This record gives sequence, C-alpha cells and structure tokens, in this order.
Amino acid sequence: MTTEATTPDEIWRNPHAPVAERVRDLVARMTPQEKIAQLQGIWAGIDAGGEMAPHQHEFAVAPQDFDELTRHGIGQLTRVFGTRPIAPEVGARTLARTQRQIIEASRFGIPAVAHEECLTGLAAWQATVYPSPLCWGATFEPDLVRRMAARIGDSMRRLGVHQGLAPVLDVARDLRWGRVEETIGEDPQLVGTIGAAYVAGLESAGIVSTLKHFAGYSASRAGRNLAPVSIGPRELADVILPPFEMALHAGARSVMNSYADNDGVPVAADPEMLTERLRGEYGFTGTVVADYFSVAFLHKLHNVAAGREDAAAQALTAGIDVELPTVDCYGEPLLEGLYFDRVDIAVVDRAVSRVLAQKFELGLLDPGYSPAPDANLDLDDPESRALAREVAERSIVLLQNDGVLPLAGKRLAVVGPRADEPGAMMGCYSFPLHVGVHHPDAEMGIEVATVLDALREDHDVVFARGCPVVGGTDDEIAEAVEAARQAEVCVVVLGDQAGLFGKGTSGEGCDVEDLRLPGRQEELLEAVLGTGMPVVLVLLSGRPYDLSRQVDRLAAVVCGFYPGQEGAAALAGVLSGRVNPSGRLPVSFPGAGSTQPSTYLSAPLGTRSEVSTVDPTPLFPFGHGLSYASATWVTAGCEEREWPTDGTCAVHVVLRNDTDVATAEVVQIYLHDPVAEVARPVRQLIGAVKVDLAPGQTRTVTARLHADLTSYTGRAGHRQVDPGDVELHVGTSSANIHTSLKLALTGPARQVGFDRVLTPEFDTP
Amino acid sequence: MTTEATTPDEIWRNPHAPVAERVRDLVARMTPQEKIAQLQGIWAGIDAGGEMAPHQHEFAVAPQDFDELTRHGIGQLTRVFGTRPIAPEVGARTLARTQRQIIEASRFGIPAVAHEECLTGLAAWQATVYPSPLCWGATFEPDLVRRMAARIGDSMRRLGVHQGLAPVLDVARDLRWGRVEETIGEDPQLVGTIGAAYVAGLESAGIVSTLKHFAGYSASRAGRNLAPVSIGPRELADVILPPFEMALHAGARSVMNSYADNDGVPVAADPEMLTERLRGEYGFTGTVVADYFSVAFLHKLHNVAAGREDAAAQALTAGIDVELPTVDCYGEPLLEGLYFDRVDIAVVDRAVSRVLAQKFELGLLDPGYSPAPDANLDLDDPESRALAREVAERSIVLLQNDGVLPLAGKRLAVVGPRADEPGAMMGCYSFPLHVGVHHPDAEMGIEVATVLDALREDHDVVFARGCPVVGGTDDEIAEAVEAARQAEVCVVVLGDQAGLFGKGTSGEGCDVEDLRLPGRQEELLEAVLGTGMPVVLVLLSGRPYDLSRQVDRLAAVVCGFYPGQEGAAALAGVLSGRVNPSGRLPVSFPGAGSTQPSTYLSAPLGTRSEVSTVDPTPLFPFGHGLSYASATWVTAGCEEREWPTDGTCAVHVVLRNDTDVATAEVVQIYLHDPVAEVARPVRQLIGAVKVDLAPGQTRTVTARLHADLTSYTGRAGHRQVDPGDVELHVGTSSANIHTSLKLALTGPARQVGFDRVLTPEFDTP
Repeated sequence: MTTEATTPDEIWRNPHAPVAERVRDLVARMTPQEKIAQLQGIWAGIDAGGEMAPHQHEFAVAPQDFDELTRHGIGQLTRVFGTRPIAPEVGARTLARTQRQIIEASRFGIPAVAHEECLTGLAAWQATVYPSPLCWGATFEPDLVRRMAARIGDSMRRLGVHQGLAPVLDVARDLRWGRVEETIGEDPQLVGTIGAAYVAGLESAGIVSTLKHFAGYSASRAGRNLAPVSIGPRELADVILPPFEMALHAGARSVMNSYADNDGVPVAADPEMLTERLRGEYGFTGTVVADYFSVAFLHKLHNVAAGREDAAAQALTAGIDVELPTVDCYGEPLLEGLYFDRVDIAVVDRAVSRVLAQKFELGLLDPGYSPAPDANLDLDDPESRALAREVAERSIVLLQNDGVLPLAGKRLAVVGPRADEPGAMMGCYSFPLHVGVHHPDAEMGIEVATVLDALREDHDVVFARGCPVVGGTDDEIAEAVEAARQAEVCVVVLGDQAGLFGKGTSGEGCDVEDLRLPGRQEELLEAVLGTGMPVVLVLLSGRPYDLSRQVDRLAAVVCGFYPGQEGAAALAGVLSGRVNPSGRLPVSFPGAGSTQPSTYLSAPLGTRSEVSTVDPTPLFPFGHGLSYASATWVTAGCEEREWPTDGTCAVHVVLRNDTDVATAEVVQIYLHDPVAEVARPVRQLIGAVKVDLAPGQTRTVTARLHADLTSYTGRAGHRQVDPGDVELHVGTSSANIHTSLKLALTGPARQVGFDRVLTPEFDTP
Repeated sequence: MTTEATTPDEIWRNPHAPVAERVRDLVARMTPQEKIAQLQGIWAGIDAGGEMAPHQHEFAVAPQDFDELTRHGIGQLTRVFGTRPIAPEVGARTLARTQRQIIEASRFGIPAVAHEECLTGLAAWQATVYPSPLCWGATFEPDLVRRMAARIGDSMRRLGVHQGLAPVLDVARDLRWGRVEETIGEDPQLVGTIGAAYVAGLESAGIVSTLKHFAGYSASRAGRNLAPVSIGPRELADVILPPFEMALHAGARSVMNSYADNDGVPVAADPEMLTERLRGEYGFTGTVVADYFSVAFLHKLHNVAAGREDAAAQALTAGIDVELPTVDCYGEPLLEGLYFDRVDIAVVDRAVSRVLAQKFELGLLDPGYSPAPDANLDLDDPESRALAREVAERSIVLLQNDGVLPLAGKRLAVVGPRADEPGAMMGCYSFPLHVGVHHPDAEMGIEVATVLDALREDHDVVFARGCPVVGGTDDEIAEAVEAARQAEVCVVVLGDQAGLFGKGTSGEGCDVEDLRLPGRQEELLEAVLGTGMPVVLVLLSGRPYDLSRQVDRLAAVVCGFYPGQEGAAALAGVLSGRVNPSGRLPVSFPGAGSTQPSTYLSAPLGTRSEVSTVDPTPLFPFGHGLSYASATWVTAGCEEREWPTDGTCAVHVVLRNDTDVATAEVVQIYLHDPVAEVARPVRQLIGAVKVDLAPGQTRTVTARLHADLTSYTGRAGHRQVDPGDVELHVGTSSANIHTSLKLALTGPARQVGFDRVLTPEFDTP
C-alpha cells in the first residue's frame, strides 16, 4: 500500500482508503452546488427521441449548454444508448467523450454514472433482445436467467455503462395493468427467485442492478397505471416486498421507487418505505434513484408538494438520492431551499454520500480511471443469440394439446396478426419498441425472424394475416378462413403489440378494460374454428387473455409471452417437436367469469365460494404447463413428521422418465396453513425446481425447506414462524397436487426478519 | 322513587337503580350457562324458510326442544316475522308467547331481544316496502329518510320487535358487488348524513338500530362478496369509517361486523376494530352482534380459528357480544372453553353486561313488562304508503332528457322485462324477495303496481316484454320492436331482478363480472333503438350499468334504482310530468371503458391521465340529476377569505326559480385541497342540501362549514385540520361546478377525532 501520492487533505483521492473516509473527505470539500449536481441526471438527446413518455417535454428539458450544466459535476447520464438508434461504437465514443468533458468541466473531475434500460437485454440499437420477464418466470430456472443477465451486463460494461434499470420485481396483481408484461409473475417466491438470479447475473458483470419499483406499484386501482394503491401493511410485507428482499440479498446496489401512492402516501415522499424499511430494516447502502419524473410528480400529479422545492425536499428526506431522468427539482429549486435554510443540507449530504460511495466502488475516482470503451462492441454476437434462444426454448408453455402437436411436417395454414411480425417477439422495454418506433426510418438493428419464417423451414405453409392486432376488415378475416381450409392444421398466432402510452395493446401505460383479446382477434379465432379444422393457438402477449369461450375447441394452445429475438425459432421448435416444452405459467389464465384484480394467492374467501356468483377459478392455473413426454412421479414424501420452527425439513420427490424423449418437470412445493393468525392463501409457492430427465432416467429431487419459508406477518405486525400443523402440497401446478404432506412445526414461535432463509435448497443429483 | 319492592340482594330488579349497578348485580348472580345464553340467538322456523343463505343448514340448527334451549335464558330471537309469510297478528302473538315461555323457563326471567331486518321497511309479510337505500341517497333529504325510518320503527315496536338490522353504511367501492343496492352511495358524507338520519328515525321509535357492516366489507376484492379486502388504515379512516361515526353520534345502539378480512384480519376476530376503535375511540356502549354465521366463519372460511371454541373465544375477545342468527360457537364449545379455563370468563362478563344493559334500557326487566303487542298491527296503512310514495318521488333521477319528457299523454309502447313486474320495485332485503320467493304459493302480502299499470292510467299503451331479465328469445325481442313501431314514444324498462345468492342479478351474493345490463336487455334496447322511435329508458336496478353505447341515441334516461311499493306511481308521475324529478345520483354511472373498482373519490392519478389508456371518467357523475325546470343560480359566494382551523365559514348560494313550475335544486359543496400531506380526492363532498323553489321564488342557502370538514388522516396517522389554501367547489354535481371559492385556513394545525364536527349546518329560509 502506498500513500505517497496523497496528501492528508486528499483522502478522497486515495484508492486504498476506506470508501467511507474517501466519501467524507470529498463531501466536506464540496459546495452545495457541487453536491446537488451529483444528485442529478441529464438526458442528452431526449428532444430527438420523440414522444417517449408523457410529461417528457414538461420536465426533461434538453441541456442547452453542456458545460454550464456540468461545471459543478453531474450525477448520472441518462440513456446515451437508449434514446435513439445509435451504433454501439458511436455511442461508446460519445459516452467516453462526454465523461471526459464532465471530468474536465468540474473541480473534482467526478465522472457520471451512465444508466440504461436493460429489461429484455440492453435497450440499445443492435443489441440482442432477450425474452421478456414473464418468460423468465416461465422457465422456473434461476441459473439460466442469471447467465442471461450476466451476458447483458457484460455488454453494458463493455460500452462504459454502469447501471441498469432492471429487474422489475413488482408482483402481478391485476392482469389489466399494462406493465404485467414487465413482471416475472404473480408469485413473490417465483418473482424473488428469478429476480434475484437476474440481479446476481447483472452484478457479476460489474453493473449496478436497479430494483423496480419499490414498492406497491402493481396493485394500482383497477390496474390503471400510476393509480392509487389500496393496500395494508401485511399484504405489502407478505406479497409485495419479499422479491425485493431476495434481490437485495443477491447484491442489488440500487433501488427505484414506485410511482404510485400506497394508502395515500406517494412512495417518492415516504421515509417509512425508502429509509426506515429499506435502509433501517434491510440495511441497504446503495443508491435510491427516482423513477423518471417522479420527484416532479409529487407536486404535479400527487399534489403532496407545494412546488418543485418542496418536492425536492420531500423526496430527499424520504430517501430518493438521485433525480432521474434529468434535473427538475434537485437543481435550482433545491439550491434555493438550501440557501434560505428551508431544506436541511444534511439530507443532501446523505444522498451525495451514497452517490459518491457508489462511484468510488465502481472505481470511477481511482487513479487511472478511463472512460474508454472495450474493443469488442458487438452487442448481438452468436453467443448472446444462442442464450436468447435457450431462454426462449425453456420458457414456452404448452397449455393444452389434444395430440395435434408436434406438427411433424403437416401442411399448415398460418394466420393471425402476430404470425408475420418481428415486433410480436418483443416487449415494450425492448429497444425496437421502446425507442425504435419513434424512428421509423431507421432499421431495426437486429434480425428477428417471425413465427411464419420459422415454420416455413419445416412446413408447407399458406399464410393469411386475418386481421391486424387492432381493427381489420371482414374481407381479411374471410381470407384467413379460406387459408385455413387449405391446410391440415391451422396455426393461429394472436396476441399483443407491445408499446408505451397508447402505442400498444400491452406495455407501460397500455392498460386494458377487460381480458378479451385485443381488436377482432377473438372473432378471427372463431371464424377459423368455424372451419372445423384443427386449430393450434399460439399466443404472443404481454398478459394472459380470456380463452374460456374457445378453449374446448382448440386442438392445442401454446403461450410464448414475448420470447425475444430468437423466439420464432424456439416456438417453431416446440410446434414441430424439436423442442420439448418445459415452461410453466408464472401467471394464471382467467377462467370464464373471472374478474380482476385476481391472484392465485387467495385466502379461502378469495376463491370460489357459495357466497358469490362470480367464480374466480382460473382456466389455466399458476404453475401449469405440459410437456410432450410426462415425467412419472414415483414417490413424493418427507422423512420427518416434525419440523423445528428453526430447522429444515427435507422433501424427496422421485421422478422417472418412462418415455423415449428427454423431458423436464417443474416440481412445485406449496404451503398450506390450516389455521393461522390471519387469513392466508390456500396455497402459496415456497419452492420450485425444474428437473431434466433423459429417456429412462430416474432422479431424486431433495428440497431442504427451512421453517422460515412458512413465516408470515401475524397479528402483531412482524413476520413470524408459528408452531403447529402445516401441509406441503407437492405437485405440477397450483391446482394439480400429487402429494399432500402433513407436518407439525415444533418448538417456540419465532420472529424472523430480513435475514430469514428466503429460498429452499434443492439437490437434484 | 321507591325501593321498598327490592331487597339489597336484588338491585337488578330495581328500575330506579342505575343500569350499571343493575347489570353488575345480575351478572354476579348468573352461572356461566346463564351468561352465555344471553349471547346467543335462536332462529325458530328457519327450516321452513328454504335456502335463504349459504351455510344456513350447516350452522342454523333448528331448536329441537325450545324449553331445553331456553332454560338458561336466551339473548336474541331471530326474525320471528322475517322467516316466512306470517300474518302480523299471528307473528305478534307467537312472539309474545315465545317471550313468556322464555321468561318462565329460566331463573331470572329475562326476555329476549327480538330482531328483524328492516332495510327497505320491516322485512315482514304485509308490511310496506319502502324505496331502497340508493333511493334514500338519491333524495339528498335526510329529514325525509328520518321520517321514513321513524315510521318503520313504529311498526316494529307495535309488533314487539326491539332491534332492526339496518342501515347498511358501507360506502360503495366496486359496482360489481351485489350489495351495492343496499348501500346509500359512494360518498361517505352522503352515506353518513342519510344513514344517520335513518338511525335517528328508527331509534326515535325505540328500536335499536344496527349499523352494518363495521367495517370494510364493500371494498372486497373485485367486488366479490366476502372476498379479502386490500385496504390501509388511511382509506379505512377517511372513506369507510365516517358514516359509522356519524350514525353513532345519531344514537345507534348496535353494530354488526363486516364478514370480510381487512389486510388479512377478519373483522369478527379483530379487537382493534371492535374494541379499541369502536369502544375506546368512539366510546360506544351498545352491543356488537355477529353478522349471520360470521363467528363460525372464523374457522370454517377464514381459517383463523382452530374450531368452534377458538372461534368463540376470538370473536368474544375481539368484541362480538352476540352470536347470530343462532348459536353455533357461543354454546357448548364456549362453555367447554370456560370450564377448562381456556377462555377467560371476563370476556363473557363483558359481553353479557352489554347485552343486559341494553335489555334494562329497553325496559325488558322492569316491573310490569309485558310482551303483549300493540292493538294496531296494520303494517301497510295509507300513511306508510304515502310516505313510501313521497320518498320514491323525491328519489327518482332524471339523467338525460332531450325534451321528450314529460310524456304528456302520448301514445306509448312499453317494453322491457321490468315494465310489468312488481318485483322490479324492490331490493333483495324486501320481504317479498328475501323471504317470499321461498314460498311461491303464498301471496305477496302487499299491493305493488308495476310501471305498466301506472302508465296505463294516463296513456294509451301497447306492451311487449321483449325479454326476461336473463335469457329470452329472438321472437320476443321482435315483438317488442313491433310494439315500439306502433307508438309515439317507446318506454323501455330495464334492470335487475334483486335476489340472494344466485337468485337475482343484484343483491347479496349476486355479484357480476362486468357492468353490462344483465341478459339480453342491451340487445333489446338496441333493437328498439333501431326502429328510430324516441326511446325513454327507465332503469330499475341495484347498481349503475354501462349505458355508454346507447346514451347518445336515447331520448331520455330515468333511473329509479328500486323505488319500492309505491315506485310505479312515482315513476309514472315523473314520466307524465305530475312529479318534477329532484333526485341526484348517489353513485356514478360508468363511462365507456370505465373499470372497477372505481369511485369519484379519486386523487388526481385515479382520474383520467396521460399515463394510462383506460379512462375512468363516468358517463353520469356522482351528484348528477336533472329537473324539468332548472333553478337559476344567481350568486354563490363566501364572505370570508380566511377560515380559522377551529372555526366556520359561511357559503351563500342564491337560487331563483324563473319557471312557472315548482322545482328543486341540490346544492353540493365539494372540498378541493390543492396541497396536502397525502394524495387526496380531487373533489370530495362536504355538504349538500336540497332546496325547493316555488315558481318565481328566490331563496338563499347558507351553509355553515366547520373547518373540521376539511380534516383528513395525515402522515402521522391521525385526523387533522391543516392551515393553508383550500377551495370549495359549489355546483350541481361532482363534475358540474358553478363556483370555486378560494379560502385560506388560518391558525394552528389541529388534531381532531370522533367528536369533530361531521356535518355542515344549512339555513334555507
């Protein structure tokens, strides 16, 4: 260790000094302007980005004079790559040059953190588009998702990006919400397990992972985006927060607030959520960044702040460290509040200390730091595409099959608005749909096959679109009927156009009134069914739709959600039989008469009952999915009858593949608590594992379940493990249980917290 | 005062001793069996009552041996009149005889409290059926509702009944819920004002009024009856609880629990709700009675109790004093728990003390008490019918009128399933629909004209039903179209069949998936509209329905909800012009694309916004309603600019009737708080008054508004009045504001509680 290069006055420059000391030293040297500059983002080029978000032009003022804006430094650079189509090399050079400008323009030469969206892969031109989060959930394979995220993170690091605004850990609560497609599913254990794996992967590449949207957003009234959230502390603690807790354990270094208010308090102004819980209870030391414009929304939309200064003061006090995407409240208004002592500099010091600590940890202030990008800037290399393909193949869910699948070379009619549309493969946070749509003259930047393209490789195909996603003509539907009559099997590819704020049928700001297929697609499906031909429905959508009126007449149903750039090949692989489907539903499909909000996580009175005429039973339940070859369940059991409240029990499941094809099973373990202090879900997933089985192979799965997994928030308001009887329901979906195991939790009642065991351990030798 | 008749050992017999002493003395003399007997109901004759409720036969075991059941006494007699059609004289004799048996069978000779349903009038055979609660709300006339309730109470008292299970004070939150028809509306101030008036009326007749359902029930998930309630403490305090607070101030002496769980805790087992809040904060000293079977539901449906003893212990501990409708948990299971010291006798003593105090107050234990009924047992006298007519006339809401109304003797086609159906006038808690439907051979017991009957008195009418409420044929629709062609105007009468648990399209347990008119009624409406004839829609329903697709083509729309026994005459009066409509909507009608849950009480982000494609703007907003002659708003203003946080401000509205017919206006005052600690509704009703105006008359309305009316639950969790700017929006509906008055609340912030000023004072000289 050498300290010669530093003087006692310049501890912050010493890479060997503890980060806390470096931070303290640096903050002590900074003027208020320099401090608040570190809490701001700037969004260069937003004016060229089209109408990407409501209120964008109101708040996201394009920097007129970059040097003036950065002469006190700058905290964050917003979406250098994710604002318009820009070649990776050009973007990387621009970013590096900008960083040099920032370093040179200010007194301490502190680089900015560059952040990007990266939900379905880096949202940049020419970058691989991976499957959407519902697909990750459908894989039930955290390790696969971790590998995907590591690869995404690697591509970001090479460009000079530091932070990714993913994953979304909101637990789906109302399928009408447009952002359901960005969630991993409706179960906190699944969302947490898969979400934590994504975090581990992204962070393994050195990228700061940002947990969205802390917390409650998905429960907005009637699934309307940003609408008020009616929720109590128990539901928040037991359903909404666990995925965030799991992802924090996985090493996430940043958190983004929910836009909405919970029981009247906007999270962006809520110290209980952002400070007491996140910092105090969870011990989080990273940064909290504002969801875009949400500081300004405190006065513009929530009416809890009197103006921009008040909004800044409240957000800072609550615990939002950085205003994104660009400065609105954390600039002049905040400075004025500080000047007149209406805002305490202590909240600024707290925030800037966290921002600087992260910059130190990222090495941005170490000697020799260079913003130069990597030499290899290929964001869509064959390895990435292969990984996107693998995730897609493992995520596709076969919901129903009367034997028509696999298609085995049959003559096909392919119809439907999503059959010959590359955009059908991608969610609203993919670059092509998030940004590319605003640049219709630019190329998409990546090659995306359609289902039609992929099916043509193996089949004799006649194609007719039938209708667009929204709208259409009788004539076009008639053409599709005609096409269907000419084939042996009709493959109907229906679903959503993902997009933002009215530009799609699913996606951010694209909420719906009911769960009928958009536009005339149900009519098209009925018309094709009317031919009497066997119909295979392929659904490419951002949410489950109501298929109850057709399901009995469909030969097969395959759900792909948005399977990404390589999704068409994966889907064709499943349809043709090259790929044995192994995905399982991360969200329930609604049954006839189901209403929203709805979740499989219901106490008895939330399920079908004698006291309501409305039956919420799903058509395809959470966890459901078929394979072409079913695993044989040999035994499922547990050695113990007693389960210490501070110990583990081991569940063994023996599976055998009696077929001659490789297959997979997702073993799902649900908790049922016959009597508890509060109304608990009839069944709640506490662990699941996908098991691959070669032809003839027998494997034993052992799940080691800590009693912490039975914990819930009791009457006293804290999370507890109760002694007493519980049941473990082991099966292949939330509605298909092979074995119920009765166990007695023994020993004292225990109070558990953030450090509880959050996941089971699985052995699958 | 004389005490000679009592000995020191028999304080409880002394009518001059303080009730508390009498109670203490009596409880001290009782055995555990005698105590718990006072906490039980029995439901004689339930087995003859058909399938009135799910789980009825599971829990409501018919008494095999009345003497055995009552030898320790009995707390309550359940629905002697409201179980099967029984003539008032016979019922009254039966009740009196039963009371004598009870008195004689037990050691202390304590009579039972006899309770009945009385939501739309006493639910007894041959009793007047009054308009339903949505109609009460629509009148905006608390005094009229008070008079109605006093008359209802008088009929009950004459029979020997002591307690009425009304009013329902749940604030409508989701229009899909079947029990919306039992609510007074979607605004807590309106529900509380009208509900408190009902309470004052019923109690003025000596009848114990029972507030239903304390609290949260109406917010059940997706409007499914008894489903879990996602709610936080602020929404509970600011929306759900105020009507209960207002009704307790009005003198209600009993409270019934909500069936549902709030954030996981069933109210029947929640001491925070039933004891800390109700007794501690509100100082309530009456009885808490279980909603039917809800103690048993703790173990059967909520899974929070291990069995019947545990359910009894939890309910008693929480604060449910009496198990209704009959004993299931508060009998042998409770006794066993007491015997083995698993249940503390103190919770029994607490409950029995409240029950006995109420019996003392009712005079049931006074010397000379006699259960003999009144000589006059006419439950449907002309005065009652006239009052029912008056409420109906004042409640009908004219939603739209292109001038076709009044009909003025025109030749009419009358079509629709509700046109010639007496049951269309009544809600699910009316005797004919609640009980009578199980006795199809019995007469209805009252005369109920239909809309068709009433229109025929003034008009030449051709009638065709068109379709039933649910189902129907093409032929019948065609007949209606044919009928429509023969007239000058077509009156289409659509709506609900009220009923319970699947026996209706609205009512308890009759929840719906969406807000389309039931069955083929929309199709019928379209078919009639297709004739090009002017169409007047009359809606008789338990909830608003989606009329957005037809509204632009309808000549007029009249909403009657369920206007009761005299509703047809009232409706015909409005249609013909004899009655000038003055009702205003207590619930919003949904607009195209509206979704549920929905309420006009929305913070800005709950209303139409740029961030969601779903627009919740209603078609007809809360408070909307037309009259044939509009009042002229001369001025609306306020003398003050400053409003002390502990004082009042006075709003003056000058109205003039420039027409030559008598009319009425409902002046509505809404609060808008530009900046608050939490997200508050954009507009929230704080006061409303109906003002009658003779032709040419000018009247000045003065509303004296205490600053307490601006209070809300702030960040600290208590109700507060904040200094600062507020606006009063004065108008004729929540969306039609004549004048916005800006005021500054001045003085210190104040914390207010149960004793705050809950209503404005209106002067209308």
